[in-house]
Amino acid sequence: MKKTVIIVSGGIDSTTLAYYLKDKGHDLYVLSFNYGQKQVKEILIAEKIAKKLSIPFQLVNIQKIGGLLKSSLTDKKEKIPKGHYAKESMKSTVVPNRNMIMLSIAAGYARSIKANYLAYAAHGGDHLIYPDCRPGFVRALRMALAESFGYQKPWPELIAPFVSFDKTDIIRMGYMLGVPFELTYSCYKGLDKHCGVCSTCIERKEAFKKANVSDPTKYER
Amino acid sequence: MKKTVIIVSGGIDSTTLAYYLKDKGHDLYVLSFNYGQKQVKEILIAEKIAKKLSIPFQLVNIQKIGGLLKSSLTDKKEKIPKGHYAKESMKSTVVPNRNMIMLSIAAGYARSIKANYLAYAAHGGDHLIYPDCRPGFVRALRMALAESFGYQKPWPELIAPFVSFDKTDIIRMGYMLGVPFELTYSCYKGLDKHCGVCSTCIERKEAFKKANVSDPTKYER
Repeated sequence: MKKTVIIVSGGIDSTTLAYYLKDKGHDLYVLSFNYGQKQVKEILIAEKIAKKLSIPFQLVNIQKIGGLLKSSLTDKKEKIPKGHYAKESMKSTVVPNRNMIMLSIAAGYARSIKANYLAYAAHGGDHLIYPDCRPGFVRALRMALAESFGYQKPWPELIAPFVSFDKTDIIRMGYMLGVPFELTYSCYKGLDKHCGVCSTCIERKEAFKKANVSDPTKYER
Repeated sequence: MKKTVIIVSGGIDSTTLAYYLKDKGHDLYVLSFNYGQKQVKEILIAEKIAKKLSIPFQLVNIQKIGGLLKSSLTDKKEKIPKGHYAKESMKSTVVPNRNMIMLSIAAGYARSIKANYLAYAAHGGDHLIYPDCRPGFVRALRMALAESFGYQKPWPELIAPFVSFDKTDIIRMGYMLGVPFELTYSCYKGLDKHCGVCSTCIERKEAFKKANVSDPTKYER
């Protein structure tokens, strides 16, 4: 049996990964995190996605650690920069070690429910500014988890099937799997509509265009 | 400069490590965790130790994740077993992936304050039932942190100077450094006095005896 914990943010990547793994026969358990990010709309979306897939959902509240981690995504006094991911200014959106923190907690949960896998929706489009979305990080953390659990079965193996994909590839795959893209949410602003001008909105627009899939997203601009 | 984040639980190991690193000239920042453990007395002790060393202290409250992690240390319905660490029953005291979770958060904090080191008081006496106190885990997590931060300086290097020590060695070292052992607290019960019969109390008594250092601890039994 493939019992699998998956972290879902409500964005396109993790939602598509959930659909992909469900299609591959995984028995999924969804975790979603409140790590003190300013917008928490994504958590409600993640819960909706889990309901749509009829899989158990749990919110993990580690909101209080937000104050320890310096980033424009968590600091209310700092503005989230606009523009393309490639820009130097986008570095302020990095929440230091956020993904390892979420994956460590998810791995502890996976161990507690005797899951065999821990699924992580890292993908190539994020590599430039996010080193923890690269294959090297996935390999190193997979090894650290095996050591943490002393190779005593079942310990959760970290899997990241999309790590060599870019967002265009993910949208192509999601389209074929019937992912409800109109439900997913990725804007940093957290307003009702996607703002259309932050880096994640720009990436989203471009990826739908490149994938030649019609974009159901409502953008403010 | 050696700017270092250290996780202190208020027990002998992490307290001695703080004294050891201070002696070596490290500029220390203490984190202590509430991860939903039943006894939180240790947190107050950790704060006292930090005050005594005149170093900044921060409590990290991730209490809410306790419910996700199955262990007799976090589950109010489960009894903490008595007796020696070597016993099979002691496995129930393992909080799945607890140390990686705390270290991941501490690493994110270390990155935020531009610290060069992250200090971890793992030691050999715990190896038997705690794989995440072994050198293999320390090495693997050190690598995962380097990958997570993309080798961009300064990233926190994981150090565990006591990883090859046992508790007896730590007590010898602590004695030479003037560690106030009478302040430290390690009992699983969290009562005023140490219970004297849980595995950590037994280990504590034995280690003082073997180190030939007089044990200032007040035990119930």
